Amino acid sequence: MLLGKVAGTLVASRKEASLSGLKFLVLKQLDLEGNETGGYRVAADAVGAGIGEVVLYATGSAARQTEMTHERPCDGVIMAIVDLIEVDGAVTYDKSEVS
Amino acid sequence: MLLGKVAGTLVASRKEASLSGLKFLVLKQLDLEGNETGGYRVAADAVGAGIGEVVLYATGSAARQTEMTHERPCDGVIMAIVDLIEVDGAVTYDKSEVS
Amino acid sequence: MLLGKVAGTLVASRKEASLSGLKFLVLKQLDLEGNETGGYRVAADAVGAGIGEVVLYATGSAARQTEMTHERPCDGVIMAIVDLIEVDGAVTYDKSEVS
Amino acid sequence: MLLGKVAGTLVASRKEASLSGLKFLVLKQLDLEGNETGGYRVAADAVGAGIGEVVLYATGSAARQTEMTHERPCDGVIMAIVDLIEVDGAVTYDKSEVS
Amino acid sequence: MLLGKVAGTLVASRKEASLSGLKFLVLKQLDLEGNETGGYRVAADAVGAGIGEVVLYATGSAARQTEMTHERPCDGVIMAIVDLIEVDGAVTYDKSEVS
Repeated sequence: MLLGKVAGTLVASRKEASLSGLKFLVLKQLDLEGNETGGYRVAADAVGAGIGEVVLYATGSAARQTEMTHERPCDGVIMAIVDLIEVDGAVTYDKSEVS
Repeated sequence: MLLGKVAGTLVASRKEASLSGLKFLVLKQLDLEGNETGGYRVAADAVGAGIGEVVLYATGSAARQTEMTHERPCDGVIMAIVDLIEVDGAVTYDKSEVS
Repeated sequence: MLLGKVAGTLVASRKEASLSGLKFLVLKQLDLEGNETGGYRVAADAVGAGIGEVVLYATGSAARQTEMTHERPCDGVIMAIVDLIEVDGAVTYDKSEVS
Repeated sequence: MLLGKVAGTLVASRKEASLSGLKFLVLKQLDLEGNETGGYRVAADAVGAGIGEVVLYATGSAARQTEMTHERPCDGVIMAIVDLIEVDGAVTYDKSEVS
Repeated sequence: MLLGKVAGTLVASRKEASLSGLKFLVLKQLDLEGNETGGYRVAADAVGAGIGEVVLYATGSAARQTEMTHERPCDGVIMAIVDLIEVDGAVTYDKSEVS
């Protein structure tokens, strides 16, 4: 899994039938220091993530292992909202301090 | 999923038998600002996308989760045509204004 | 899928039992302008491609969705021989003019 | 598989239901000389790895082939703790000497 | 598949239960000219490869399509030992001349 920040939304009215009802969010990829790497992903949202939240997302076939995305043509899913990251003994992200 | 612009078509008369009838489109990859990244993908079209349209495409095993591509040797599929992208509170792509 | 040019062959007498009979070809990756990118892939040949031909290849689990490669430890397959590529309204590759 | 060093932990209270109970560790990717490459992964821990340990991790669908991660939306798993690496005839990592 | 040279071994006593008995080899990735690219992979050995040999390895779910790796958390497998590579009409690797 990699870290991303929910940066936006994407609307697509014409799509593969099985995708209807799925919410797509735009993620900016983050490195371990919380900086944007320049990369992005559009991912289905399985956890009700909001704009600005730091999330964990899975890609590949793992992205279909949620009720919402099962057997759908989806290769990225937000599967967790991050509360706290601790790296090398220091807290590098604490959601309660950000919001 | 990543964003792409439909840039062209590809014809292949000799191909794996199960692929007959599948339409292949050439996609130029886009970044979040809508600029071409220099990368590309050839993808099966599951939604009837047209040249110039901005689309969402999935890769890997997800690309076989459409009726059209089920159990076929296909690792990329266009699964949605994008109407609107909003990033950091601003609309960065609006199909109705482009066309 | 990505574009490749069949650049050579590879012989391997000692291999996983299920691979016997599979033909491996060496592909040089191509960009949309038909230039070599410097990357390569060794892929199983599902279509009878010849040296110098421009082909479409699939990677990952898609590479096992052919009769030849089904349930074999193979992560790349040539699934189509390209006849024509048209990008941005211009023909960028036409097999009939090359050969 | 690639080599990583367990650098930290990640807490996520809101996550896909099937993930509850899974422990996520933050891995810094290592090259063959044991240097950090700058890349990272968040992976599920299937072996009880501790901070500072050098581990082997698998990505993609392989990450779901453990009891802990079976059919869960998880694309990275620590599946072994490394004791010894020998490259080009020299021991490049020996856990017993580090700890 | 990509080309690699078997550069070493890796010992891991604590690992996911299903992995016991699997031999892990350290591969240095090779380009088509036989030069090391700087990349590496740790892969399960399905063919009895020896140090210094040039091999073909598969990644992703393909790595589980051998008897040895079936349903194990393994994302890389050596599935063939290379005898001969011919690129652009010239032999670029011939095992019988190296050893």
